[in-house]
Amino acid sequence: MANLNGAASDLRATFLGVYSKLKSELLSDPAFEWTDASRQWVDRMLDYNVPGGKLNRGLSVIDSYKLLKEGKDLTDDEVFLASALGWCIEWLQAYFLVLDDIMDNSHTRRGQPCWFKVPKVGMIAINDGIILRNHIPRILKKHFRTKAYYVDLLDLFNEVEFQTASGQMIDLITTIEGEKDLSKYSLPLHRRIVQYKTAYYSFYLPVACALLMAGEDLEKHPTVKDVLINMGIYFQVQDDYLDCFGEPEKIGKVGTDIEDFKCSWLVVKALELCNEGQKKTLFEHYGKEDPVDVAKIKVLYNELNLQVLKSFLGKIYKRRK
Amino acid sequence: MANLNGAASDLRATFLGVYSKLKSELLSDPAFEWTDASRQWVDRMLDYNVPGGKLNRGLSVIDSYKLLKEGKDLTDDEVFLASALGWCIEWLQAYFLVLDDIMDNSHTRRGQPCWFKVPKVGMIAINDGIILRNHIPRILKKHFRTKAYYVDLLDLFNEVEFQTASGQMIDLITTIEGEKDLSKYSLPLHRRIVQYKTAYYSFYLPVACALLMAGEDLEKHPTVKDVLINMGIYFQVQDDYLDCFGEPEKIGKVGTDIEDFKCSWLVVKALELCNEGQKKTLFEHYGKEDPVDVAKIKVLYNELNLQVLKSFLGKIYKRRK
Repeated sequence: MANLNGAASDLRATFLGVYSKLKSELLSDPAFEWTDASRQWVDRMLDYNVPGGKLNRGLSVIDSYKLLKEGKDLTDDEVFLASALGWCIEWLQAYFLVLDDIMDNSHTRRGQPCWFKVPKVGMIAINDGIILRNHIPRILKKHFRTKAYYVDLLDLFNEVEFQTASGQMIDLITTIEGEKDLSKYSLPLHRRIVQYKTAYYSFYLPVACALLMAGEDLEKHPTVKDVLINMGIYFQVQDDYLDCFGEPEKIGKVGTDIEDFKCSWLVVKALELCNEGQKKTLFEHYGKEDPVDVAKIKVLYNELNLQVLKSFLGKIYKRRK
Repeated sequence: MANLNGAASDLRATFLGVYSKLKSELLSDPAFEWTDASRQWVDRMLDYNVPGGKLNRGLSVIDSYKLLKEGKDLTDDEVFLASALGWCIEWLQAYFLVLDDIMDNSHTRRGQPCWFKVPKVGMIAINDGIILRNHIPRILKKHFRTKAYYVDLLDLFNEVEFQTASGQMIDLITTIEGEKDLSKYSLPLHRRIVQYKTAYYSFYLPVACALLMAGEDLEKHPTVKDVLINMGIYFQVQDDYLDCFGEPEKIGKVGTDIEDFKCSWLVVKALELCNEGQKKTLFEHYGKEDPVDVAKIKVLYNELNLQVLKSFLGKIYKRRK
């Protein structure tokens, strides 16, 4: 176990080393005439937004690639390339989070203020999101242009980004101010939102990157995709739970799904289980800023025993954030 | 001349026909499970933001391709493909404009409210910008996946988008609230902003698309790039002029470069030509919301005869917007 942890922390250190190299390449990208101010801006913006998460998505590209190599030791080049693809996913995640936080008017992320809340950043964060997104093809071009699977990598990232943005869209338009109507919410809608908004990029993309690096044709592995997407949906159910019942210090953010009238698994499940009186409570108090309203929803969730899920999930995944 | 105009309006009609086809393909893209609400949202968002401009960038792909074919008649397939690439540029433009308008807190665009100012849109416009951007690789994949130049098209759009976002970044960070310092502004900075923010996507990209379609290697045409970039810089100088002196009804927007402390060609040129007293006026009144301050800047521009440019540019380009 000590060895395994040792290996895991070594891997993390290696992975973070690749981040530094990619960052310094991006900061001297010859496609742009840098000014000192713009180089400093991007440097700080990357450090603030890219490496501060759990890095699960990125690290799992390396893990998946190792599994595909059936235990054979990876060359330094293979570790670097798998790490670079892992970082592309972390960059994609950073791009989504920076923009989502503006759209959701969130305050904190990963235990610090959201990037757009940082003094002098504000709406420049929108362009920073775009810059983050644009770094992905820069990284891919620099390190994968000569690979046979280069075009498949570009197609993969493009398709997954499209799916994520489309999932985010149905999430946003079901939550429009002034049209808050709980009767639109259902388990099939919830499934669709989380499948597209989260599962593709968080669960399928890392493994798909590893498959491409291993020379596999993604079209020939539909079951892999199917299983990973379902894992992703399950993951999001946990995430919805933690948004409401997780401790802010542990999950690194203050959840606001109730205030934001989000199509969370909790409210969908509550709508399924509630009696007429409880339904009235849901319709009256869901999606309101007042902590009194929020508290009433949480009491109702507890009445419906939705918290039973907590220990259940805890045992399976030991996930705290 | 009647024939030429006839041909031009035919071309425009053909081009708009391709828009309808591309839109309907995108609205049934099998990579996403559409809901009625999301399909209607994207339909309306596209019609609002994509086809309402002058379409110069898009149409010039077809014109450029015709020139490369040295007058030979294009097949229907060639017209369609050149039009599709033209629309990709119009989509890219729509994406930038939707997001720029939020960042600049603009009010009107193309004679109508900015998309984020439309009721019930608001910050969802950020995700709509992302959707617009994601439509480009969807269009390219559907219609160009089997072409030898497919990967070059992807690389081209990626590089130009990166350059545009980088130009926008230096524009934004030189304009940060609370750090308004006119002494940072100079002709080289202005050149850098406009070259990256505007010239690559507006002038180089359409011709580069046509070159790729004609089977050319972009690396072998550095002079083409150079000339087009310089045309683009000149175009932006006009644009800066029109922002201040153009009639809102004609240019389709109310210019706010002075209020927004923009690194406009006018202020850069004024800084170059002004005496000490005029310099004091610039430093005191540039970048303020009050119409009294704005008027003082415009009077100063006139004193420095910057308006002489107007008739000069008018004669060369007959450009009103």
